[in-house]
Amino acid sequence: MRTGLKVFAPATVANVACGFDILGFALDKPGDEIIARFSDTPGLRITAITGTKGKKLPYELEKNTAGFAAMQFLKHIGEEERGIEMEIHKKMPFGSGLGSSAASAVAGVMAMNELFRCPLEKRQLLRFAVEGEQIADGAFHADNVAPSLIGGIILIRDNPTLDVHRLAVPKGLQVVVVHPKIKILTKDARAILSDTTSLKQHIQQNGNLGGLIVGLFHSDFDLISRSLQDVIIEPQRAKLIPNFYEVKDAALKNGALGCSISGAGPSIFALCANTLIAENVAKAMQQTFFDNKVRSEIFISGINQEGAIKR
Amino acid sequence: MRTGLKVFAPATVANVACGFDILGFALDKPGDEIIARFSDTPGLRITAITGTKGKKLPYELEKNTAGFAAMQFLKHIGEEERGIEMEIHKKMPFGSGLGSSAASAVAGVMAMNELFRCPLEKRQLLRFAVEGEQIADGAFHADNVAPSLIGGIILIRDNPTLDVHRLAVPKGLQVVVVHPKIKILTKDARAILSDTTSLKQHIQQNGNLGGLIVGLFHSDFDLISRSLQDVIIEPQRAKLIPNFYEVKDAALKNGALGCSISGAGPSIFALCANTLIAENVAKAMQQTFFDNKVRSEIFISGINQEGAIKR
Repeated sequence: MRTGLKVFAPATVANVACGFDILGFALDKPGDEIIARFSDTPGLRITAITGTKGKKLPYELEKNTAGFAAMQFLKHIGEEERGIEMEIHKKMPFGSGLGSSAASAVAGVMAMNELFRCPLEKRQLLRFAVEGEQIADGAFHADNVAPSLIGGIILIRDNPTLDVHRLAVPKGLQVVVVHPKIKILTKDARAILSDTTSLKQHIQQNGNLGGLIVGLFHSDFDLISRSLQDVIIEPQRAKLIPNFYEVKDAALKNGALGCSISGAGPSIFALCANTLIAENVAKAMQQTFFDNKVRSEIFISGINQEGAIKR
Repeated sequence: MRTGLKVFAPATVANVACGFDILGFALDKPGDEIIARFSDTPGLRITAITGTKGKKLPYELEKNTAGFAAMQFLKHIGEEERGIEMEIHKKMPFGSGLGSSAASAVAGVMAMNELFRCPLEKRQLLRFAVEGEQIADGAFHADNVAPSLIGGIILIRDNPTLDVHRLAVPKGLQVVVVHPKIKILTKDARAILSDTTSLKQHIQQNGNLGGLIVGLFHSDFDLISRSLQDVIIEPQRAKLIPNFYEVKDAALKNGALGCSISGAGPSIFALCANTLIAENVAKAMQQTFFDNKVRSEIFISGINQEGAIKR
């Protein structure tokens, strides 16, 4: 068997309180790994999927986010007939609101690009990965895919044209993610949302988004803290997560800059000004879930500035 | 008669396409002037109002934006009994969407602060000026007052707490304002607005606001141009301005980065990458109004970085 290469694509937090569908950032861990190698059998094949914890992921390329994303890339470079084997190693929870399908799609495309010695730049891979994630999610949006691929905190000005921009990341900024072991389907989390919002809420949310971006550029933690508010989506989705407001309170009382739902949930993220605060916040959030008989896992991470990498 | 001092507060463009109620910037001209001097008669009095072009502005302090703003300041510093005369010289059009009442309120407060040799810093004057403008407008918001006072392009994260932030201004950025000689009352322009918006439009507008701020920080004129879109307010208010879309088309065809309604209108502003483009854009916009038998006046200006000043 030929030697394969391994790529890693990180988990991501989308929405980030005031940036529904247009903001996301990457974590150092967890994430997905894909191993790819050339083979003598023509065409791309998924030869292994591990780490799915009982859930069955499809081996058919058309139904698998990583497979589909990889295929789009291979068609683009005219290599869809090449014999390639791909192993998908899920190393992060599913349906957690941490961009699991985005990480797989990104890893799939990255692995192919690396296998062919990088004919495309990272940013050029974005469209293929978004098309891959769309298989799982139905929507064409880059708020998980873009940060997983290129790293950092990403603003998507416009999803249809993938007009994505890196924001500044203040030194020391830490992320706490608490993933309660409950299930929310993204499509349910979507269905619960009203398709209108009040002009007043729009103005507040817009102001907070602006404040967050300015706060990031100026490393102004107070401004970041005041801006990390979601007056539109969080009030609608909080009911899907048991004890959401208690957990959020615990984060804020322990010094988090802000706290809201990660993606469509059920994971909850908090931003913190340093690692010491992050550790206290993480403990308090997990303890609050535990006191309410909800099991959870914790991730503490900086903002991952590299995104997907070859390992 | 004692020598007076003179202050100038500039006109402003609020909303700026994607920042309804939360963005505004200051122009070099036009603006309002106020002359203030101590007098032997106790209390503040407005002794002259010029430049009102037939419209009667009230001399009563409680009903005059400049007078009311000045009074709030004098009360704050405990000098409301001091004899002071104030002359208001309106040097900009009323009801034009260029923040005329905000400029008066700012000039009123600035004049008092200068008269007492600046006991407060400029930013501390903001609340008094906003309270003054509220007399004319009914709303407590700073999207005209803040840029008129402190200059630059201003984001108001939150109006109630006056959480205002200066954005970066790319070198060369020019503003064209065309003021058609028609009347729109701000309260009518408010009444026409729906008090809800679709989630889809909210996301688009939010993305554009983010894009505009990033574009300003990075001096990325292409990004600024793509971001200068208003999918919520402009479509509702455009009908109040005859030939709005023709004038906007003329601006964009002549190289403007973007073009939208200034404040509540009827003035229309365009941002341009340099003075040459700005001159062509201004001519084309005015000509389009002229071809449709609408008289207009033009202002071409950089972004005023100083705001209100003593002259």
